Amino acid sequence: MSKPAPLSGFPEWLPRQRIVEQHVLDVLREVFELHGFASVETRAVEPLDQLLRKGETDKEVYVLRRLQASEDTTDDLTAGSLGLHFDLTVPLARYVLEHAGHLDFPFRRYQIQRAWRGERPQEGRYREFTQADVDVIGRDELSFHHEVEVAQVMAEVFARLPLPPVRMQVSSRRLIEGYYRGIGVGADGTDDDIAEVMRAVDKLDKLGPDSVRRLLVDECGLTPDQARACLALTEVTADGDDLAKKVAGLGVSHPLLDEGVDELCRVLQGTAALRSEEFSVVAELRIARGLDYYTGTVYETRMAGFEHLGSICSGGRYDALASDGRSTYPGVGISLGVTRALAPLLARGLLTASRSTPACVLVALPDEASRASVDVVAGELRRRGIATETSPAAAKYGKQIRYAERRGIPFVWFPQVDGGHQVRDIRSGEQVDAHPAAWVPPADDLHPTVSRGAP
Amino acid sequence: MSKPAPLSGFPEWLPRQRIVEQHVLDVLREVFELHGFASVETRAVEPLDQLLRKGETDKEVYVLRRLQASEDTTDDLTAGSLGLHFDLTVPLARYVLEHAGHLDFPFRRYQIQRAWRGERPQEGRYREFTQADVDVIGRDELSFHHEVEVAQVMAEVFARLPLPPVRMQVSSRRLIEGYYRGIGVGADGTDDDIAEVMRAVDKLDKLGPDSVRRLLVDECGLTPDQARACLALTEVTADGDDLAKKVAGLGVSHPLLDEGVDELCRVLQGTAALRSEEFSVVAELRIARGLDYYTGTVYETRMAGFEHLGSICSGGRYDALASDGRSTYPGVGISLGVTRALAPLLARGLLTASRSTPACVLVALPDEASRASVDVVAGELRRRGIATETSPAAAKYGKQIRYAERRGIPFVWFPQVDGGHQVRDIRSGEQVDAHPAAWVPPADDLHPTVSRGAP
Repeated sequence: MSKPAPLSGFPEWLPRQRIVEQHVLDVLREVFELHGFASVETRAVEPLDQLLRKGETDKEVYVLRRLQASEDTTDDLTAGSLGLHFDLTVPLARYVLEHAGHLDFPFRRYQIQRAWRGERPQEGRYREFTQADVDVIGRDELSFHHEVEVAQVMAEVFARLPLPPVRMQVSSRRLIEGYYRGIGVGADGTDDDIAEVMRAVDKLDKLGPDSVRRLLVDECGLTPDQARACLALTEVTADGDDLAKKVAGLGVSHPLLDEGVDELCRVLQGTAALRSEEFSVVAELRIARGLDYYTGTVYETRMAGFEHLGSICSGGRYDALASDGRSTYPGVGISLGVTRALAPLLARGLLTASRSTPACVLVALPDEASRASVDVVAGELRRRGIATETSPAAAKYGKQIRYAERRGIPFVWFPQVDGGHQVRDIRSGEQVDAHPAAWVPPADDLHPTVSRGAP
Repeated sequence: MSKPAPLSGFPEWLPRQRIVEQHVLDVLREVFELHGFASVETRAVEPLDQLLRKGETDKEVYVLRRLQASEDTTDDLTAGSLGLHFDLTVPLARYVLEHAGHLDFPFRRYQIQRAWRGERPQEGRYREFTQADVDVIGRDELSFHHEVEVAQVMAEVFARLPLPPVRMQVSSRRLIEGYYRGIGVGADGTDDDIAEVMRAVDKLDKLGPDSVRRLLVDECGLTPDQARACLALTEVTADGDDLAKKVAGLGVSHPLLDEGVDELCRVLQGTAALRSEEFSVVAELRIARGLDYYTGTVYETRMAGFEHLGSICSGGRYDALASDGRSTYPGVGISLGVTRALAPLLARGLLTASRSTPACVLVALPDEASRASVDVVAGELRRRGIATETSPAAAKYGKQIRYAERRGIPFVWFPQVDGGHQVRDIRSGEQVDAHPAAWVPPADDLHPTVSRGAP
């Protein structure tokens, strides 16, 4: 077999890169669990009709077929009725409905899993990718404060990750809707006009203000003044209580607008303590997220220098994740695109691990007959949590040291002829007496560390 | 939407069950990494021709198709040329060939991932399942001691997991081949006869000794004496150096047989220290594993009371995992069927978690205005690694305590009017003064614990 070629859109990591990804996933899990979110994994497949309910993703779904399905007509899964999930929200909605009787509400779950989309691959967009979602789901009701909470949780994640500077952008569908109603949009009582205007304004990045203004007038039927007012709102940014003053300065008033402003201020206050030079949270009212199901706070996140990736962490409040006739399940959640954020950093070597193996120690082998006693040393180190390999062969010590060097294993352990032991830090060359039941490596060497910049 | 029905063959866990699975996966990762194995994950898909190389699994492969593939003929992935991997060995072989230039050999990797097979589901056999594989891959050569090592690694996993009693069964293809050659099978110099006899003997469980004897004579062309000798070997079991004596008692001699006996004794010795009443390792020479690619030690594992599942943890030595013309990559590995082993235990409630959430503490909310100060308490506890939720609503304390009870959260934290704090163990009712910067829960309560038996 000749050397296989990589498949475009299906990224894979070398061991040293995978250690970076593991670190990120570990931080996500730790923060989610510290906040009392329980892990859930769903199956990779959903019935096709569920996947296509939203109507916009049909081109992207991978459908499954058993290779020899035609020979086995008794199999109900052969008709192409299952597809791979393309996000973790559709599976969550199904999971909540299927297991509602066994779940406690508000249901706090996180889910870190792969998803698949048959899209044309490009940087930041993959056919197979890992998402990390955190959601709070209520039954029939869900308090607003959870909209602050999920932002806090993701803020804590970002505060711990060695990413380039990250900016979380928050906005509020209630604020925007209140503002639109305040300028007379949706005066006929239906929500359709509001949604149509939001979708038009959501195209601002793509089309620019002049085209959006024309859209608003020509397609949505707004007056030029209304269109101007809509665009004025998109210019508002604030990172604290100045938000209220800036919105008030636009001269529009509506009870829903006041509520929305108040709520968005609470999101900003709730994340204030977590901000730093590397992590900011800003209300940007141009963010509306075109998706119809959001009904409250919405979140997007951009990484400095990687704005071309789009948002790496998005979500919002939705009043109806699912409904089973008896109950409706409102929720709020944020999803971090793990692959979207990491793949470009890994490809550029901007996030690296200190070594390519978990091993902290290599126990050298004086001769093949010593393997059993060397295994005992390794076992003692492992029992105290120190990841340890034994040398694969009783080669010359120089060759055994190079084995460790190539992998970045920082310490080589040498059993001595007199029954004693020495351990060498192969970076400094310093070699000291040690005992396998007592020696501990420096804390920074116990596990591989992850840092920004080249290895 | 009405209540969705589960999909047969695609098991999913409730949060409390998932905590059990997480514990098992954590133990696997910890043991693998302590032994210096690096994590690798491969993409979920492989080219179909790779998946079908072994020829025996074609009915089981799920092929992918983009839903609207026909509209997009420029897409090279639309022709049904990709399938979901059905194990982690085929992807490993491809990964090693593709990335050989960036890997260090012997390459020590573990891989914990889902796989898919379009099989008819039954207990222990699923359409989507999680495998945990650990392998050592050499380039052109691989020392025998790694065959002892991977058995030790899995033995350490089993010693740490709260499973029903587990028996690891080891055998040796070299021992068996040497024995067959010693009785004159394969005397024409080809390996085909040896492989054919092994495949026949491998059917012993299914067909019984009389049918296998007939097969050996009628199909494989053995003499009745040779057939009897083959069956005699399958009766040998031993858990230590008595193995050599028992095999010698069969009166067959061949240099390869001696080597095989010696190697298998080393596997038994290497795992002796890890055995207990709950975990045994036995040489059982009836185990041959019909798969042609094994060439040395082979492993299978059975769980007491769950023998109907078959082997839950299998593997062996293979002299050619892959080859790229310049190099051949021999390996040895073992794979634990995580879903196969756990699903029946979870379904019967034989493995349970102490609670359904990671949260150890619920901070009660005296009134909605106190949310900010309650968040500060929760933050202090989390900073010290104590998973903490705040109460979703300022309900009566009895209701807030019941919220914790339903989830199994052991402690409820009460901010006091005077600015002090108390914490209550809601199982005992004991309530004591505490400080958020100092209080620690008993070690057993910090994280959910997993144990055998009902919750």
